[in-house]
Amino acid sequence: MHLLSIDSLDDEQIAALLDRADQFAAANRRRESSTQLAGRTVFNVFYENSTRTAMSFATAAARLGAQPLTLSVEHSSVKKGETLEDTARTLNAMRPDALVLRHREDGAVATVAALMDCPVINAGDGTNEHPTQALLDALTLRQQFGSLDGVTVAILGDVRHSRVARSNAKLLPRLGANVRLAGPPGLEPAGSTLSIDEALEGADAVMMLRIQRERLDEELGDAPGEYLSRYGLTFGRLAIARPEAVVLHPGPMNRGVEIADEVADLQDRSLILRQVENGVAMRMACLELLIG
Amino acid sequence: MHLLSIDSLDDEQIAALLDRADQFAAANRRRESSTQLAGRTVFNVFYENSTRTAMSFATAAARLGAQPLTLSVEHSSVKKGETLEDTARTLNAMRPDALVLRHREDGAVATVAALMDCPVINAGDGTNEHPTQALLDALTLRQQFGSLDGVTVAILGDVRHSRVARSNAKLLPRLGANVRLAGPPGLEPAGSTLSIDEALEGADAVMMLRIQRERLDEELGDAPGEYLSRYGLTFGRLAIARPEAVVLHPGPMNRGVEIADEVADLQDRSLILRQVENGVAMRMACLELLIG
Amino acid sequence: MHLLSIDSLDDEQIAALLDRADQFAAANRRRESSTQLAGRTVFNVFYENSTRTAMSFATAAARLGAQPLTLSVEHSSVKKGETLEDTARTLNAMRPDALVLRHREDGAVATVAALMDCPVINAGDGTNEHPTQALLDALTLRQQFGSLDGVTVAILGDVRHSRVARSNAKLLPRLGANVRLAGPPGLEPAGSTLSIDEALEGADAVMMLRIQRERLDEELGDAPGEYLSRYGLTFGRLAIARPEAVVLHPGPMNRGVEIADEVADLQDRSLILRQVENGVAMRMACLELLIG
Repeated sequence: MHLLSIDSLDDEQIAALLDRADQFAAANRRRESSTQLAGRTVFNVFYENSTRTAMSFATAAARLGAQPLTLSVEHSSVKKGETLEDTARTLNAMRPDALVLRHREDGAVATVAALMDCPVINAGDGTNEHPTQALLDALTLRQQFGSLDGVTVAILGDVRHSRVARSNAKLLPRLGANVRLAGPPGLEPAGSTLSIDEALEGADAVMMLRIQRERLDEELGDAPGEYLSRYGLTFGRLAIARPEAVVLHPGPMNRGVEIADEVADLQDRSLILRQVENGVAMRMACLELLIG
Repeated sequence: MHLLSIDSLDDEQIAALLDRADQFAAANRRRESSTQLAGRTVFNVFYENSTRTAMSFATAAARLGAQPLTLSVEHSSVKKGETLEDTARTLNAMRPDALVLRHREDGAVATVAALMDCPVINAGDGTNEHPTQALLDALTLRQQFGSLDGVTVAILGDVRHSRVARSNAKLLPRLGANVRLAGPPGLEPAGSTLSIDEALEGADAVMMLRIQRERLDEELGDAPGEYLSRYGLTFGRLAIARPEAVVLHPGPMNRGVEIADEVADLQDRSLILRQVENGVAMRMACLELLIG
Repeated sequence: MHLLSIDSLDDEQIAALLDRADQFAAANRRRESSTQLAGRTVFNVFYENSTRTAMSFATAAARLGAQPLTLSVEHSSVKKGETLEDTARTLNAMRPDALVLRHREDGAVATVAALMDCPVINAGDGTNEHPTQALLDALTLRQQFGSLDGVTVAILGDVRHSRVARSNAKLLPRLGANVRLAGPPGLEPAGSTLSIDEALEGADAVMMLRIQRERLDEELGDAPGEYLSRYGLTFGRLAIARPEAVVLHPGPMNRGVEIADEVADLQDRSLILRQVENGVAMRMACLELLIG
């Protein structure tokens, strides 16, 4: 079994992952670890740089007693002209117990998974999916609201290029949430006419997406603070949502660009660090489900 | 004891490594691991980038319960002007249980080994040797033919710069095989007049070597497909060998350059992935022999 | 509890660390390891490249049974514009059992530590402190002299930019040693008028600091051998110290620049490799104290 997309999971598996991750989160807070995956080897192969995701998966593997082995693209045979398929077959022949893979191209992880005999977890492929991020977001929201049933989540910013938005747009509605997607001109979901302010209206939770600074131009606002005031999550704009609306961000944040400091650091209402914490727990649950 | 060259091993040790690696390969296929090297630390120091070899050694160490610690050249003191000898003495003073070392200069691994109190495994030094590759090739051939006695192996391509060819040319004849080396003009073994087609004639196994794309020039054929048709392993050229001749390649492959897709993917006859699989098993056997 | 500076430790803790590290050094020489930190995860985050320190901490963690997870700056979110504070909070939310951090800015490690719920060890911050280096130096000197009481230590070279000098200047006097700091013009301690030769006069131990080659200019002597003859530790200059004076260097050495080969390799009197060996042992003692 692979975890390539939210579609890889049935409702029962999603519910089980959320429950199990809750337990792991509590255990991690008590700094407990387990040895249930002792002797197992988890390959972490990242074709895109990542602090949080690579460390999060490595930590998750370590806490379960498995040995994470991380390979970053700089050390890869890719530069030597090997095809992705041959790299996949090569990694498979080493018989890892699981492969965690991030790649800059949509579908690359599925291509690799089709050639692997062990479980593959998509740690983000291009603008396609990032299922463990959506799962940890769902966990974070569930911890906050008890249930996602009827919860309105506004996902804002560079939706068009966001695998996080895409996976969340699949997962959260399956758990009963109402998801609204909106972004600045050119970054909004294809065909959408919902404005950012409309998406925010009465939302229970606001997930602000990262904008690549390279995308900023005159139209989006490339002067300091311009993108923030036009499209970013300022305290003023957050007030359009419910009074106690919570804030999420997949990180890393560009403070002062897509999110204001005062919002990122909102006592009790910013769940951004809780997301990171839940990330390790959810990846433990996923590794356990797939390998265990 | 170090494993710097095929010459580091006597016949009994070679036979024992092949037998033990066979057992490890079977255990790996069942995804079993051991804890026999628990508490041991294996340094993997790579002065040249490598996916497969670095991951293969790290996986081998992990499967035996040891902790692999990998250092790539980018993070090394080399840039700070430290001599190789001082780096060796420094690593030695940290008391690893084994050092796996790849270096771009011939003899560099031996230089380091002379200063180390722990076993050193040469994971490839310049154009000199790559003994674990030859050992895994021998294992792969033995699995195929039962014994290497009387087996004819053609090693083709950039023989002149190949540490893989060099180590195999030492090892395989000691196991009873007939080794023939041949390559394109300028890349053939010094003094050899054997053509690629002559080397292939009646061969039981063909090991195609990787050609660095940077070496391709007008003489060797730098137009697309030109090197392949002149010197590469096409299906047509493979037909010069025995009808059921098997194909090996140390990887990573340049498909369409030194090897045709149809050859690389030959059902039952391409042993290329079996080589990768045997790589982990053979490195486990080597680590066990040297540390255990 | 954090280890950010020598000031983080009281005298009792320093004495306990020295005793414990002595035991670990002996165990390491017998290649024994322990499992006392099994299940623990130690993050090694290096914003500056390092061979010896990163490997030394990783080895220390591994020998205690903990899982070291190393992150180098190249893979970090820093490039994505994340603030150091957000990186700290993110790492903290992953709940490592300890964080080892090297950063190029003075005080950066303290900034991070203030945001972490786990122990933080300063593995060098800018020109500020490098407490584990001073501790391992103290251990090395204590092994040599039995006690540091009354021992005169000359710390020479680029004192102004040296976190090693700074931490030693705090630690060694607390153990009873007399510390003299001296350097070439522009690199000497602020306000000092002590010459290198004066500092050497009758010294029991000489710690030569590394000079960044980039700092060499006409005044300091950028011709080959010029810095060495003017300010480096030649055998002749060492003779100003006590006849049996020992030599230390935090590494990596620039041979022929700040230290002559004949001094670096002085039989019995060069303690440079003993320092490396004690580095692993002292870091084990620190991890044990902070996590255990």
